[in-house]
Amino acid sequence: MSEILVVGSLAYDGVETPAGKVDRALGGSANYFSLAASLFAGVRVVGVVGEDYAVEDENLLKSRNVDLSGLERVAGKTFFWKGKYEGDLNEAITLTTELNVFESFNPKLPEKFRDSNFVFLANIAPELQLQVLEQVKQPKFVGMDTMNFWISSKKESLLKILSRVDVVLINEKEAQMLTGASNAISAAPKITEMGPRAVVIKRGEYGFALYTKDEGFHILPAMPIPEVIDPTGAGDTFAGGFFGHLARLDKVPSAADMRDACVAGTLLASFTIQDFSVKSLSKVTLDDVRLRSRDYLKVIGR
Amino acid sequence: MSEILVVGSLAYDGVETPAGKVDRALGGSANYFSLAASLFAGVRVVGVVGEDYAVEDENLLKSRNVDLSGLERVAGKTFFWKGKYEGDLNEAITLTTELNVFESFNPKLPEKFRDSNFVFLANIAPELQLQVLEQVKQPKFVGMDTMNFWISSKKESLLKILSRVDVVLINEKEAQMLTGASNAISAAPKITEMGPRAVVIKRGEYGFALYTKDEGFHILPAMPIPEVIDPTGAGDTFAGGFFGHLARLDKVPSAADMRDACVAGTLLASFTIQDFSVKSLSKVTLDDVRLRSRDYLKVIGR
Repeated sequence: MSEILVVGSLAYDGVETPAGKVDRALGGSANYFSLAASLFAGVRVVGVVGEDYAVEDENLLKSRNVDLSGLERVAGKTFFWKGKYEGDLNEAITLTTELNVFESFNPKLPEKFRDSNFVFLANIAPELQLQVLEQVKQPKFVGMDTMNFWISSKKESLLKILSRVDVVLINEKEAQMLTGASNAISAAPKITEMGPRAVVIKRGEYGFALYTKDEGFHILPAMPIPEVIDPTGAGDTFAGGFFGHLARLDKVPSAADMRDACVAGTLLASFTIQDFSVKSLSKVTLDDVRLRSRDYLKVIGR
Repeated sequence: MSEILVVGSLAYDGVETPAGKVDRALGGSANYFSLAASLFAGVRVVGVVGEDYAVEDENLLKSRNVDLSGLERVAGKTFFWKGKYEGDLNEAITLTTELNVFESFNPKLPEKFRDSNFVFLANIAPELQLQVLEQVKQPKFVGMDTMNFWISSKKESLLKILSRVDVVLINEKEAQMLTGASNAISAAPKITEMGPRAVVIKRGEYGFALYTKDEGFHILPAMPIPEVIDPTGAGDTFAGGFFGHLARLDKVPSAADMRDACVAGTLLASFTIQDFSVKSLSKVTLDDVRLRSRDYLKVIGR
């Protein structure tokens, strides 16, 4: 079993959905990712928090044996995001983004993190993604996420980091924006032309479309969940399940491995959306995942 | 093999999509349905056209051995629909609906149609759907479609016909509108409470969600098609493939039969969207379907 290095945000979120609201709850890509991935493999976090970041929130990851020696605590406030979901739970409307301590984030890897085999560069500025990747000696498998803001404002740096990763996990609309394609199916092969050998298009309640240069498309639905409470973090949870599965296999992933990893991702994400923040995800056990996996395989007819 | 009775529109459509436009091309639910279903089973059409309906358009169905003895030709013009698709190909924007001869349509079944075992009531006024169903002696399996217009203007008649069918095939947004549910997963069981033992939620480019009282959800994606030319008729084509498959089996369908029927529907629909009007669908052979089926099963990992 290999360990996974993740760089991303540790944050507080204010979220409003048709099911209710939270004013300030634990969030951030690195938190969702680590909680999901640590069910399957060891996780190492690189990130930054402010003085207000609660010790119990750090302890949550520690209780999952996540290595936080790459987590800096600096003067100032923790990254804060506020958003809401209206009719369409597949898309958040951002109300506030306070970068705070993230503004001057200058990621430095502890020496012992430099041998990481699996690396996930969550959705942060492409220059920071590159800076982290350059500190890793010889990774086996590197993945990244990105978002509309970087696609429109940092296209050049984004293309540079894209050319150096093995897989991109990206939202459907952002995949279209990145490529100019009108749908996910024509976007995916265009993204592999930018470098990665695989792309996972995250489709919210509709599941995922994996495209690999070797094997073409593999498309499956999401687990059917009647009552979605809060979709925040579902994509990062997906990435955590995906990387967790692959790191447990501890080899250069084949297309078939990535197919199974996507299923792990979609299963984990289905827990995240059942409550606000990390409330549901932080309680999930491997037995819960196994049970849900059985239900899911029935849904897709296997 | 049983024969399928379908009542629906035979029409001309003006359609504009990002890929181009047609001013007046063959359309209508009964045409798409019949072209798809007749690949698998015999089809009997009940409908009405005006004096302007081209003989070659009638001959297209005849060339597929579709029984048109329930097709009336009356004074006046054929049903005409004009619509366009902008960014979102999953949803048409209606520009014009000219009911024309459909306005006074009073469906009467030829005596020889009354023994039909499989019946599909395409998207027409619920009173007309009921009127047709009442003329069928003892159908084995009845399905229907509907749309937002009938849900808002004819709810009472709609609930009456809903209580008498075995399966509803309905668009995702319309399923939500009918039930007040916020997503397809919570809408589907609510629709079965209205009578049908099965619901197929049509999700456009995302495929379908079948829900049966016996077996719960069965969800699969659509066939990945990079260049969608015109999605018009995809839902009716789906219904045609679905019913064609079931009529070929010629028994009261089980949940497993309906799962396979949905795959047949999604495969047929994938041809329809590859060109305007019925241009692509009308050329499809069973061999084409078999080839595409192989590709599809690979996509979903079987």
